[in-house]
Amino acid sequence: MNWLDEVKWDGDGLIPAIAQDYQSGRVLMMAWMNRESLQLTAEKMEAVYFSRSRGKLWHKGESSGHMQKVHELRLDCDADMIVMQVEQRGGIACHTGRESCLYRKLENKQWLITDPVLKDPKEIYS
Amino acid sequence: MNWLDEVKWDGDGLIPAIAQDYQSGRVLMMAWMNRESLQLTAEKMEAVYFSRSRGKLWHKGESSGHMQKVHELRLDCDADMIVMQVEQRGGIACHTGRESCLYRKLENKQWLITDPVLKDPKEIYS
Repeated sequence: MNWLDEVKWDGDGLIPAIAQDYQSGRVLMMAWMNRESLQLTAEKMEAVYFSRSRGKLWHKGESSGHMQKVHELRLDCDADMIVMQVEQRGGIACHTGRESCLYRKLENKQWLITDPVLKDPKEIYS
Repeated sequence: MNWLDEVKWDGDGLIPAIAQDYQSGRVLMMAWMNRESLQLTAEKMEAVYFSRSRGKLWHKGESSGHMQKVHELRLDCDADMIVMQVEQRGGIACHTGRESCLYRKLENKQWLITDPVLKDPKEIYS
């Protein structure tokens, strides 16, 4: 059986994929993959997502330079979620210029921003 | 503004929530939350998901005893994903009796099981 056939794609043919820093373990982001993007991710060992808003493959870093080298790919028990161990080029995963997209923490019923912007997004996407 | 209103619920009123071990950083599982379950999670500081298959709230551990004490709740940049730092009671998050639901690793185009079953599910759910 093809390993891609074991994945339980959702109604839109997608699966959520989580990128975790392979050294610190910090969760950097979650995005979506379709069959083609997961296959490309495994072939290149670089994260290739499927952008739902743009409706096309999104080779992470193609415009920002912030590629993700993939060290490991895991599938969960229900086969409907992927976790990747990645090496984040530039140390910035988030489009806001932060290390991680998870830069807000719940504190006293408020989402508190805990992380600094490492690079101005205008510079990243210029 | 209520912190729950800042969450971007999907078409079904849900958001994916990832549970990560607060000490090792290992991703243990992903499940879904609706507004009520996220509110309860924050109130109790114990993971309360929404079971899509059963169509109801699922206080993790209610039948297995494997509760998740929540140390931290984070929201991502798009407000459509939650990451929790949790303390996993019993050291077992997965219904298969394993520590983590991510017990399969891609190796040579195969999903290889890397983790032992720590407790027989028949015992867990008896």
